[in-house]
Amino acid sequence: MTLSLDQARSIIAATRAKGREMELKPLTVIVLDSGGHVLAFEREDGASPGRFGIAHGKAYGAVMLGMGGRAQMARAEAQAYFMAAVNGVYGGKVVPVPGGVLLRVSGKVVGAIGVTGDSSDNDAEAALAGAAAAGIDAEA
Amino acid sequence: MTLSLDQARSIIAATRAKGREMELKPLTVIVLDSGGHVLAFEREDGASPGRFGIAHGKAYGAVMLGMGGRAQMARAEAQAYFMAAVNGVYGGKVVPVPGGVLLRVSGKVVGAIGVTGDSSDNDAEAALAGAAAAGIDAEA
Amino acid sequence: MTLSLDQARSIIAATRAKGREMELKPLTVIVLDSGGHVLAFEREDGASPGRFGIAHGKAYGAVMLGMGGRAQMARAEAQAYFMAAVNGVYGGKVVPVPGGVLLRVSGKVVGAIGVTGDSSDNDAEAALAGAAAAGIDAEA
Amino acid sequence: MTLSLDQARSIIAATRAKGREMELKPLTVIVLDSGGHVLAFEREDGASPGRFGIAHGKAYGAVMLGMGGRAQMARAEAQAYFMAAVNGVYGGKVVPVPGGVLLRVSGKVVGAIGVTGDSSDNDAEAALAGAAAAGIDAEA
Repeated sequence: MTLSLDQARSIIAATRAKGREMELKPLTVIVLDSGGHVLAFEREDGASPGRFGIAHGKAYGAVMLGMGGRAQMARAEAQAYFMAAVNGVYGGKVVPVPGGVLLRVSGKVVGAIGVTGDSSDNDAEAALAGAAAAGIDAEA
Repeated sequence: MTLSLDQARSIIAATRAKGREMELKPLTVIVLDSGGHVLAFEREDGASPGRFGIAHGKAYGAVMLGMGGRAQMARAEAQAYFMAAVNGVYGGKVVPVPGGVLLRVSGKVVGAIGVTGDSSDNDAEAALAGAAAAGIDAEA
Repeated sequence: MTLSLDQARSIIAATRAKGREMELKPLTVIVLDSGGHVLAFEREDGASPGRFGIAHGKAYGAVMLGMGGRAQMARAEAQAYFMAAVNGVYGGKVVPVPGGVLLRVSGKVVGAIGVTGDSSDNDAEAALAGAAAAGIDAEA
Repeated sequence: MTLSLDQARSIIAATRAKGREMELKPLTVIVLDSGGHVLAFEREDGASPGRFGIAHGKAYGAVMLGMGGRAQMARAEAQAYFMAAVNGVYGGKVVPVPGGVLLRVSGKVVGAIGVTGDSSDNDAEAALAGAAAAGIDAEA
């Protein structure tokens, strides 16, 4: 299965709704496909201009490594030089913290969500709500 | 004035609607702000995975140079080495062809649209329809 | 549908067999998935060391742009600055000549083959034989 | 002596067989020649899409520095800034952890194996089995 644009838009809408419900700072949300390529993106008013790169980096690391943001952060904390090397390999595009959430259908990775704007934990919580609303299994 | 996310989403919706009306191939549409940073993005089902970079490059050149895609293409055809040099300066991120459309409010640049998927001329026509629907002056 | 490693290996084996049958120079063959990521690769003895990049570039351009090598070459010949810009966007990774062959199942792109070593036309002919042996539609 | 493609394919087959025997996660295996250039590569079904870069980085560091992955990791842990500098020199392409295995014939380096997918130690054990099956001395 591949994520459709409609599914990606639903995920973004539900992630943003969760952010409003939790009264988070302005969120920036991206959805990537199973190859790490952008399907849809929205940056809320008031978010800083560079948020695309952070949202992208959280989701991109999840897809490329097949690990959610929490697992990436654990690896970065255990072996900082490993995550530095990974970023060399991937052109500096990986941001290994919560808010990068892997999406699976029937156990197979179909893409990832990246959220940035509030604390990493709150970003991840909003992303999980986005995936749940679309009925897709998620790994923060 | 700055473009809001709601305006960017309206522009994308109207651009895509024009594409369906014209029966174009699947479109990919981006809206950048006045600093050249991504506000919103959607890639229609069936578009090739690398379309983010092309859509971004059309809009990014428009914002960074203050010229629509047609003017950039004219310059590229007259002075290929100039556009090559521009791409050196901007990290290879400029795609100087129609489909990059500059957005102005009261004469001031507020951002740009980038569209890719069909012929460059059709891409530009869809982008202009997107800007018109949002009531924003556009320069293809 | 996604290409399996077994399918990728079959494509490479049949491409190489065609090269031997046509008495081509040593071939280098890559198979990418639908996101442009490497599935399998082989470089025949006697091929020059840099052949990975050329084979990859032929297949990568096909996937990212959704166009076979012949269509990419036509665009490069009509608008050299466009293909130069595309290479800026894709990090200089696109080699727009025959030998890059798009693979489709039920009309949907599932990946690409990249072949280098002999003339571009012969490279493409060997790749087409590889796709045919695997029963997959191909666009040179 | 130089590694032949047939030897590289044998190494990959035996590495993968060891992975199945050990019931490891899906493996990705690369073999580089003595110049650090790719000879052969296979990514098993279910591996994440970015595994080429990690496998390559493990083997590339081994060839370029003439050190197996364990020795590279020891150096990274003792002098993180040294390995960061090395990655500056080598374009960020070195991943200094076990799974990068140097290959020698009569004491002379003929290439390296890179394996990724399971724990670094398991990756290295599978690579050593691959080298042993081909009758080539290996340094993890």
